[in-house]
Amino acid sequence: MLNISNRGQNMPASPIRKLVPFAEAAKKKGIKVYHLNIGQPDIETPPAILDAVRNADIKVLEYSHSAGNESYRRKLVQYYKKVGIDVTHEQIIITTGGSEAIMLGFFCCLNAGDEVIIPEPFYANYNGFACAAGVNVVPITSAIETGFALPPIEDFEKVITAKTKAIIICSPNNPTGYLYSRAEMEALKKICIKHDLYLFSDEAYREFCYDGEYVSAMHLSGLDQHVVLMDTISKRYSACGARLGAFVTKNKEVYNAAMKFAQARLSPPGLAQIMGEAAVDLPDSYFDAPKAEYLSRRNLMVSRLNKMPGVFCPNPGGAFYAIAKLPIDDSDKFCQWLLENFSYKDQTVMLAPATGFYGTAGLGKNEVRLAYVLNLDALNAAMDCLEKALEEYPGRTIVKKLSTAEAK
Amino acid sequence: MLNISNRGQNMPASPIRKLVPFAEAAKKKGIKVYHLNIGQPDIETPPAILDAVRNADIKVLEYSHSAGNESYRRKLVQYYKKVGIDVTHEQIIITTGGSEAIMLGFFCCLNAGDEVIIPEPFYANYNGFACAAGVNVVPITSAIETGFALPPIEDFEKVITAKTKAIIICSPNNPTGYLYSRAEMEALKKICIKHDLYLFSDEAYREFCYDGEYVSAMHLSGLDQHVVLMDTISKRYSACGARLGAFVTKNKEVYNAAMKFAQARLSPPGLAQIMGEAAVDLPDSYFDAPKAEYLSRRNLMVSRLNKMPGVFCPNPGGAFYAIAKLPIDDSDKFCQWLLENFSYKDQTVMLAPATGFYGTAGLGKNEVRLAYVLNLDALNAAMDCLEKALEEYPGRTIVKKLSTAEAK
Repeated sequence: MLNISNRGQNMPASPIRKLVPFAEAAKKKGIKVYHLNIGQPDIETPPAILDAVRNADIKVLEYSHSAGNESYRRKLVQYYKKVGIDVTHEQIIITTGGSEAIMLGFFCCLNAGDEVIIPEPFYANYNGFACAAGVNVVPITSAIETGFALPPIEDFEKVITAKTKAIIICSPNNPTGYLYSRAEMEALKKICIKHDLYLFSDEAYREFCYDGEYVSAMHLSGLDQHVVLMDTISKRYSACGARLGAFVTKNKEVYNAAMKFAQARLSPPGLAQIMGEAAVDLPDSYFDAPKAEYLSRRNLMVSRLNKMPGVFCPNPGGAFYAIAKLPIDDSDKFCQWLLENFSYKDQTVMLAPATGFYGTAGLGKNEVRLAYVLNLDALNAAMDCLEKALEEYPGRTIVKKLSTAEAK
Repeated sequence: MLNISNRGQNMPASPIRKLVPFAEAAKKKGIKVYHLNIGQPDIETPPAILDAVRNADIKVLEYSHSAGNESYRRKLVQYYKKVGIDVTHEQIIITTGGSEAIMLGFFCCLNAGDEVIIPEPFYANYNGFACAAGVNVVPITSAIETGFALPPIEDFEKVITAKTKAIIICSPNNPTGYLYSRAEMEALKKICIKHDLYLFSDEAYREFCYDGEYVSAMHLSGLDQHVVLMDTISKRYSACGARLGAFVTKNKEVYNAAMKFAQARLSPPGLAQIMGEAAVDLPDSYFDAPKAEYLSRRNLMVSRLNKMPGVFCPNPGGAFYAIAKLPIDDSDKFCQWLLENFSYKDQTVMLAPATGFYGTAGLGKNEVRLAYVLNLDALNAAMDCLEKALEEYPGRTIVKKLSTAEAK
């Protein structure tokens, strides 16, 4: 018998993408779907970085260095300097998106059977990379009531075993938007040093912090050997499709191991590297507009959500996501119902059930993730849909308020 | 203690790239290095496919479908039809180079501890992907005397165990250039069916067959559930840096498992997909010139090699590689010596020691791989260097013929 591998069977399907067929069916019925389900921003990719590719003089599109073009890595050193991260071009491996950087971290630092601690809710694809690497994810729960702040350090201590090799954090966070404070980052540092753990730091949303100070894992002194930074230009320059990221570490052994994996796959995407290099030359003011735009969207969306009866949405400090608690029985059913059975003015909204972001079964059943990647008008229309939907959804958990007319 | 993972330690360094520092040192001394060590062709990337990227109207460079843009997959269906491969766009996953296609195959079809049989010498990076997946490579030796024909089927039978899950072939072959005959492909089919094995078929060099008929694994009837085709545009259109490949299978279970891994990494490179799509529209005659060019190079190189005393190089039927047996003690030492201690008219040649392409320790010590990726003049100059080097190399195993002058 030809069999699929165990990891092929155990590999989770993407919780974000599994509703796609229902969205396609809704669209075929003529319903407009507002996509708040996926972190694909509508912000224009800076034309200057696309022009860099258009104007590049390429005769033969050759393999680059396996760590990426040296010229690009040297440019990135300048970029990192601006955000207070002091690295050399020999501490950077250019990757195929942040995804490959995460995968390299798993492969180089953890054995099959080892454990990685991740505060939940977390980016669902960590599960996929852990599955590929045979690594077990140990979630510790952060609470919506605290806005998804770092769980108490005692919660980490409780689950650390001889198999624990790393902690993954993402700040500002996907899916919660939470921005870890300096005190929280220092607490993470202590526990990593105490238990000899790697700190994998996914900083895809660095540029989008609205309240409070941005603290990179690379800002923490004395943690150089522990930190692996997983980076990407996807969100920074609204260039998700470029598939360009970076694996950054000052730990030479980890770097050398990652380079062997990087050599096996030859090189990162070539055209994207031209874009990435040009992006470092964008003026510092480039980020002002997208950041202001995201901030207005956050303010609008969070305020609209919290005005809906029974809805609670903490105010996220960064990124472009929020998790909201809804008065519903089951977020998977609700999100599917939105696409299959609901419309308001021939429109509906697509959300990501939060269940897919929790490692602990049963959590997130009354939570959804919303990505504020649409403009204010679209966002308002999407909130109108959600508000109506919560009144109509058969599995709602609060009684619909009777209107004055109905009460009579 | 922070440790590197076992796979990070066991991961082999690239045998092709480990001599790079010596080449860089030679260049710094002012020596011109002819690179016959790596499969990076000098053939121009078709300007039309680069223009497709230049002219693309991109506002937001978005994630594509995880399987790749549907428009590109539909185009590829047309391409495959032309080479006699009948597939649908739902049997294709666009990958980041052929590398990712190989990795998907390992992850979806084999468990850690499973075995894959590969005729050696083989593409060295299969080792890296096997290591990442915890899979054991079982080599069976093909012989230079037969031109690296498929080893007898009895040799396969001898090493098949309950752990054997797949055979990998590459035809035309890297590193040998050997083109499997229809009879050899049929023999492989029989053994895959008899023992329920997957046939991973790496067909990166499909367009470059000079003698004999090209037979794809997908041409074999009755083997649909077994075959996973691993493809790439790198060599086909001299676009190695694009990082664009394809994972193709009619086995729905394998496809679905691979899609879950593909979803975890979101999407393949976006700009490269525009190139790939445009490439399918190149006229069929596009391949005439590069194919003729490679053929003249092969003829020149093989003929020059076989004229050198003590050298034997079988005539490869395809791709742009050849393995030659040299009168030397140790190919690793020799290739390093070429860069470190030798020059002729301020020039030298960089070759790949064949040891890196064998899974069996000790094999390939008097063999090197040569990639004929340089034009005829450069190739002639490189052959001049090699000829001289074989006369001077201290570890040569045949006595230098005395010139008439010296004999006196």
